[in-house]
Amino acid sequence: MLTHLDEHGRARMVDVGEKPETHRVAVARGEVWMAPETMAAIREGSLPKGDVLAAARIAGIMAAKRTPDLIPLCHPLPITRVQVDFALHDPDEAHPLPWVEITAQVETVARTGVEMEALTAVAVAALTIYDMAKALDRRMRLTNIRLIEKHGGRSGDLVLEP
Amino acid sequence: MLTHLDEHGRARMVDVGEKPETHRVAVARGEVWMAPETMAAIREGSLPKGDVLAAARIAGIMAAKRTPDLIPLCHPLPITRVQVDFALHDPDEAHPLPWVEITAQVETVARTGVEMEALTAVAVAALTIYDMAKALDRRMRLTNIRLIEKHGGRSGDLVLEP
Amino acid sequence: MLTHLDEHGRARMVDVGEKPETHRVAVARGEVWMAPETMAAIREGSLPKGDVLAAARIAGIMAAKRTPDLIPLCHPLPITRVQVDFALHDPDEAHPLPWVEITAQVETVARTGVEMEALTAVAVAALTIYDMAKALDRRMRLTNIRLIEKHGGRSGDLVLEP
Amino acid sequence: MLTHLDEHGRARMVDVGEKPETHRVAVARGEVWMAPETMAAIREGSLPKGDVLAAARIAGIMAAKRTPDLIPLCHPLPITRVQVDFALHDPDEAHPLPWVEITAQVETVARTGVEMEALTAVAVAALTIYDMAKALDRRMRLTNIRLIEKHGGRSGDLVLEP
Amino acid sequence: MLTHLDEHGRARMVDVGEKPETHRVAVARGEVWMAPETMAAIREGSLPKGDVLAAARIAGIMAAKRTPDLIPLCHPLPITRVQVDFALHDPDEAHPLPWVEITAQVETVARTGVEMEALTAVAVAALTIYDMAKALDRRMRLTNIRLIEKHGGRSGDLVLEP
Amino acid sequence: MLTHLDEHGRARMVDVGEKPETHRVAVARGEVWMAPETMAAIREGSLPKGDVLAAARIAGIMAAKRTPDLIPLCHPLPITRVQVDFALHDPDEAHPLPWVEITAQVETVARTGVEMEALTAVAVAALTIYDMAKALDRRMRLTNIRLIEKHGGRSGDLVLEP
Repeated sequence: MLTHLDEHGRARMVDVGEKPETHRVAVARGEVWMAPETMAAIREGSLPKGDVLAAARIAGIMAAKRTPDLIPLCHPLPITRVQVDFALHDPDEAHPLPWVEITAQVETVARTGVEMEALTAVAVAALTIYDMAKALDRRMRLTNIRLIEKHGGRSGDLVLEP
Repeated sequence: MLTHLDEHGRARMVDVGEKPETHRVAVARGEVWMAPETMAAIREGSLPKGDVLAAARIAGIMAAKRTPDLIPLCHPLPITRVQVDFALHDPDEAHPLPWVEITAQVETVARTGVEMEALTAVAVAALTIYDMAKALDRRMRLTNIRLIEKHGGRSGDLVLEP
Repeated sequence: MLTHLDEHGRARMVDVGEKPETHRVAVARGEVWMAPETMAAIREGSLPKGDVLAAARIAGIMAAKRTPDLIPLCHPLPITRVQVDFALHDPDEAHPLPWVEITAQVETVARTGVEMEALTAVAVAALTIYDMAKALDRRMRLTNIRLIEKHGGRSGDLVLEP
Repeated sequence: MLTHLDEHGRARMVDVGEKPETHRVAVARGEVWMAPETMAAIREGSLPKGDVLAAARIAGIMAAKRTPDLIPLCHPLPITRVQVDFALHDPDEAHPLPWVEITAQVETVARTGVEMEALTAVAVAALTIYDMAKALDRRMRLTNIRLIEKHGGRSGDLVLEP
Repeated sequence: MLTHLDEHGRARMVDVGEKPETHRVAVARGEVWMAPETMAAIREGSLPKGDVLAAARIAGIMAAKRTPDLIPLCHPLPITRVQVDFALHDPDEAHPLPWVEITAQVETVARTGVEMEALTAVAVAALTIYDMAKALDRRMRLTNIRLIEKHGGRSGDLVLEP
Repeated sequence: MLTHLDEHGRARMVDVGEKPETHRVAVARGEVWMAPETMAAIREGSLPKGDVLAAARIAGIMAAKRTPDLIPLCHPLPITRVQVDFALHDPDEAHPLPWVEITAQVETVARTGVEMEALTAVAVAALTIYDMAKALDRRMRLTNIRLIEKHGGRSGDLVLEP
C-alpha cells in the first residue's frame, strides 16, 4: 500500500507525530553524462576558481532545505548537516560518455528520514550543472539518481550500494 | 566556453536584455524505474482517484515556476503554459523494470528559453513519485532526464528526439 | 468545461501565450467577523501605531506577489500595483457581529488576469487578522471572500457589485 | 490585549521558548459556494481522474507548510501531519447554492499550536478551487472559514463545533 | 579555519547533530543614514499610522524566518521569538546625518545559534526603509550592521557592546 | 512625500502600469570589515577552490531574484542580468580593518528600476561572508551599503560615485 494515499486513494501527509526523534542519515547519488568537450570545459572551469561545481554544490545544499516546499507530502525537518560532493569521471564500461558523479549526504534529528532531501540535493545539483553547461551541450542527461544508504529510524540501516 | 562563467571563471547571470522577446517552447523527458509491485500499486492508486500521478503533476507544474529560485543562474520568466504528462510502461529491451515516463512541455514569451523549467518539472515530478512510493520501494531510480526539443530564440528549432 | 483540466480531466496550466499583453485590474473583497471585544482591541491597537492592520496589509500585498507559488495552475505575472484597504464595521442586518471589510485591488500588464492575486491578498490579510487576534477570540470567521470587479482582457469589464 | 502587539502597539513574534513541546492538533473548515453548473463540472471533473479536488488538496497541504512564510508573526513549526478533505453538498437551508466543504486537520509536536496552518490550508484549497473553476463562474465565494477544534498546549481542548 | 569549508576548501553545511538543543539568543544592530528631509518624512509617516517602520518591522521579522532560504549554509531553526525595534536619531559626533537605528533580537531552542537570523532581520528591515524612502533620497546608506550579543550554546555568553 | 504611503500614511505598492518598459541598470556596493586573520582565511579559502566568495556570489545573485519576496512593496521584475564582484582590500585611511568590497550590477527591461535588487544582492552576499567566517570572527561588520549608479527610466542617469 502506498502510505501517502489514504484508504480512498487520496493524498495525505502521513502522521509521524508518534515516531521518536532519532538521528537519521541518507546518502543519494546521481550522474550527469556529457560530451567530452563539455567535461573539458567543466574541468577547466573548475580550476582555479571552481565556480561550476561550487554553484552546483550551493544549489544542491539550498535545495535540500527547500525539499518540503517542492515535494508535496514531505515533512519539514530541521536538517543538521548537508554535504554535496562531485567526482569527474572518464567514460568506462557502464558510461559511454564522461560523467560527473554527484553524492549528497543529509542528516537530521527528527521523526522521519531525509531520503527526499538527499535525492533533491542531487537532482538540483545536476540541474545546475546542466544549466551552466547547456550553451555547449544540450544533450547532457541526468541519470541514475538513487538512494545509496539510509540510517536511523524504525527501519534501521539500509545499505543499497556498498 | 561556459557562458555562465566570466573570463575569470566566476559565476554570473548572463545578460539577455538585448535579446528580443519571442515565443519559446521546451520539452523534457525522464523516467522512474521501479519494482513490478510498485508499478502495480501506482496503477491501482491512479484508479479511480489518480492521486499519485495527480500529486506528481501538480508538483512538477509548481516546480517549473520555481526554477529561478532553485537554479542559481536561471533568469525569471513569465511562463505561459506548463503541461506534465505520464505514461506507465512495462519492462522492455531498454528498461529492465517497469517505468513511468514523464514528459513536460513549457512555453513562454521571453528573452531566453525554458529548457531548465521543463527539466526541473520532470525532475520534481519524478522526485514526487519516489516520495509517494518510497515506503514500498527504496530502489527506484530517476533516470534519463534530458531535453527532447526546443523552439524559438536565436538558436531556432532543436529536435533531439523525434 | 473547466479550462484547467485537459480532455482527460488532468490538471494543466493553460496556454496564454497567444493572448495580448493588456492592462488588467481585479478587485476582491472579504470579511472577518469577530466578537465586540476583539473589534475593540483592534480599533485600539490600530491607534496610534496601527500595527494590526498594517501587518495584515503588508501580508496581503506580499501574498499577492506569491500567488503563483501558492495556487498550482496560476501563471506568474508582473504585478504593477497592489492596494489593500480595511474598513471597520459595527454589526448590521447582514452581519450579526462587528466585522473588518478587506478590499484588495491588483493591476498588471499581462496576458492573463489578476483575480487570483486579488483574492489571495484578501484571504492572507484576513488570516493575518485572525492570527493577530486569536489569543482573544478563536471564533472569528473569514467569510464572503469574492471577486467584485475585473477589467481588461478578452472578457472585458465585469462588475459584480456596484 | 493582543499578544502579537507589544505595550506600544508594535508587532512582534511572541516568545514561545518557555512553553513545552506537546502534541497539538487543529481542525479548520470552510466552504466554497458556487453555481449548480460549476458544481456539476467539478463533480464530473472529479471522476474518474479527480484532478480538481486533487489539485486543491495538494495546494492546501503545501500551503500549511508555507504558513510562517505567509503570516508575518507565525512561528515556524515541524508539522507532523496534514490532511485535507472535501465534501460536495447540494443546497440546503443554510446554503442557497451548491457548496464544497473543505476540512483540514494539522498536527505537530511543538511549542505553539497549528490553528493558522489549518486555516491557511483551508483558505488556499478554497482559492485553488476558485482558480480551477473561474472560467465557468466568477461569482463563487469562499466563506465560513473558521476553527473547528484544537487540542494540546496550555489552553487544552477547545471544541467549537461538535 | 573556516568551519563552513571542508579540508579541500569546499562549502558544506556543518554538522550540528551532536550539539544539544539549548535556548539561544542573538541581538544584532544596524543603521540607515539619510538626509534630514528623509528623516522628517519618516517621522511624519510614522505618525499616526506608522506604516514606514511597521512595514520595515514586518519585513525584518519575516526575513528572520527566511534566513536558511537566503544564506546557503545556514541551518533551518525553529525560531521561538523575533523582535525588531527602531530608534530615530539626530546627527551626532559619530553620525553626520540623521539615522534610524534598527535592533533585532531573535531566540530559539535549537542545536545552533541565531546570529544570522538577527543580522538578516536588521539587513532586510534596513533595505525596506531604503525602498520606502528612495523616491526622496537615493543616497541613504545601510551601515554598521553587526552582532551585539549572543547567549546560549557551547560558546556561552558573548557581549560585544554593553 | 513618501510614494510608498498613500495620503493616509498607509503602505501600498505604487502603480507602475503607465510607465514604459525600458532598459534599466543599477549598481550597488557595500563592505564587510573584518579582522586581519579573517581576511587571511578568506584569501586562503578563496584559493584554489574559491568557495567562500563563490558561495557569497551565488547567494547574492539568488537574493536579487528574491527581492520582491523580501521587500514588501517591491514590484516583481524580469531581471535580465546580475553580476556580483568582490575585491579584497588591506586597511587604508578610511578603513581601519581589512575589508571585502562587494559590487552588484543588476539589469532589466521593465517598468521600474532595480536599485533594490542590486542593494539586496550586496546585503545578502555580505551576510553570507559573515556566516561563512563567523566561527573565526563575530565582530565583522557589514557597512556602507549604498547605491552607486542607476540608468534608465524617467529619472534618467544618476551617478552617485564616479
